[in-house]
Amino acid sequence: MSENISFETTIRVRYCEVDKMGVLHHSRYLAYFEIGRTEFLRTSGFSYREFEDARLYLVIVKVSCNYKYPIRYDDVVRVITTLKRMTPAKIEHTYEIWNEDKSILHAAGESTLACVDDTGTLQRIPDFLLNLSYPSPPKSGGD
Amino acid sequence: MSENISFETTIRVRYCEVDKMGVLHHSRYLAYFEIGRTEFLRTSGFSYREFEDARLYLVIVKVSCNYKYPIRYDDVVRVITTLKRMTPAKIEHTYEIWNEDKSILHAAGESTLACVDDTGTLQRIPDFLLNLSYPSPPKSGGD
Amino acid sequence: MSENISFETTIRVRYCEVDKMGVLHHSRYLAYFEIGRTEFLRTSGFSYREFEDARLYLVIVKVSCNYKYPIRYDDVVRVITTLKRMTPAKIEHTYEIWNEDKSILHAAGESTLACVDDTGTLQRIPDFLLNLSYPSPPKSGGD
Amino acid sequence: MSENISFETTIRVRYCEVDKMGVLHHSRYLAYFEIGRTEFLRTSGFSYREFEDARLYLVIVKVSCNYKYPIRYDDVVRVITTLKRMTPAKIEHTYEIWNEDKSILHAAGESTLACVDDTGTLQRIPDFLLNLSYPSPPKSGGD
Repeated sequence: MSENISFETTIRVRYCEVDKMGVLHHSRYLAYFEIGRTEFLRTSGFSYREFEDARLYLVIVKVSCNYKYPIRYDDVVRVITTLKRMTPAKIEHTYEIWNEDKSILHAAGESTLACVDDTGTLQRIPDFLLNLSYPSPPKSGGD
Repeated sequence: MSENISFETTIRVRYCEVDKMGVLHHSRYLAYFEIGRTEFLRTSGFSYREFEDARLYLVIVKVSCNYKYPIRYDDVVRVITTLKRMTPAKIEHTYEIWNEDKSILHAAGESTLACVDDTGTLQRIPDFLLNLSYPSPPKSGGD
Repeated sequence: MSENISFETTIRVRYCEVDKMGVLHHSRYLAYFEIGRTEFLRTSGFSYREFEDARLYLVIVKVSCNYKYPIRYDDVVRVITTLKRMTPAKIEHTYEIWNEDKSILHAAGESTLACVDDTGTLQRIPDFLLNLSYPSPPKSGGD
Repeated sequence: MSENISFETTIRVRYCEVDKMGVLHHSRYLAYFEIGRTEFLRTSGFSYREFEDARLYLVIVKVSCNYKYPIRYDDVVRVITTLKRMTPAKIEHTYEIWNEDKSILHAAGESTLACVDDTGTLQRIPDFLLNLSYPSPPKSGGD
């Protein structure tokens, strides 16, 4: 099991993502977290699309976010996703969103995922997912 | 076949739908058109959800929109959906979005739909859909 | 100050809001919470649009959500927003999302808001907002 | 004036952008077009954010899209934006969305933009925008 390792992905804020105040709408942060953990998984050779093709789904059970400093249109942000804990029942991630030069922490959050089949019934998280190994040094990837 | 009949639905603009200029983002108009034609279909007793449960899908083949006057956050707008033409190959709608008292035309658009199965293969539009009858006087419904 | 009073608003899930699993995307719950508290405020005669016109903004400082049971396309859900606590520094709400007949609790969440001006500087929450009075029995409103 | 030159930008489809059919929601294509033309402008040294800081805005007057082949979650697509015509009154772009190896044309569209000030009044498109020069060979850029 690979825990407490992190992955960084870079996202440029789109015009259609900002609200009337010119800042990233607070609900969008959750989509950025999702991009972070999806790209993270990809580094281990895992593709979420294939996972779904096998009719298994990772669903969000719980999420939280603290908003510290607004993110503006056209900003480039760095989403740092950390795998905190993975058991047969759940996967816990934490997230930080930093500005491009990492001088400002925009937000911090966490999520808990569980695995279900296509009837929505809770499933044990498959071994191949529990046993994935990630490249050990944090790696960067573009969106 | 019921053509050139119209249906009106009312939508209040949500905060998360407006952009930095405080107006409904232009891509959202297409979602409003979609709400319009879905609510329209519902008046005939047709539920798009049941249609999909039968593994048939109406897909957009073509869409266009003319933007005339911006729509602001919290505005209440009236989407008027008109069924222009329905053949076994396609369904054509036109749309108008008006302000609440119908003194300002915000936008006008049109769309063409086709029917596919879950492999994406084009299908004849089912007879029950071609033969739907809609309440004859234009009816209103909330979102 | 009016605390621990609740407001219920009804929302029908739009096609463009569901994801590949046919369920409301988890980030959209936060937009539903936002609709809940906006409609709630409206019952007290307060319009968030006017508030923004005065160049004051309520910003999200913290949000969390527990997802209990998926919400499908075309479902009608009831968002119950409760004002838990309001001080000159912050406003706390809790939320529950129930199915139409209130037999299933889909999700529960909470949020903390603060007030800023248009430079993003933290402001005391204005007295008129602290002193708003809401209709005492929970009231319902459509989206 | 630089017309009929093209720019290509690459986008990976996000989970939160696909609908129940597992494909990019038709309204999202318009957001992809927007990313295409924004990135295109950026190659000329123009930043839309600075433009807005000067209280000028490019608004969509008209848009259309033909959908030819669905785009799935996690697909990487290439958006090719072409500047067709630019006059003091309007800017016309065309768009094509191709799959990664450019063997499948997913969609083709066009848009017309006009320039307004922050009261929404139509403005002449500023000379500096009319006179922008773009790198002559089509260039690629990531999202």
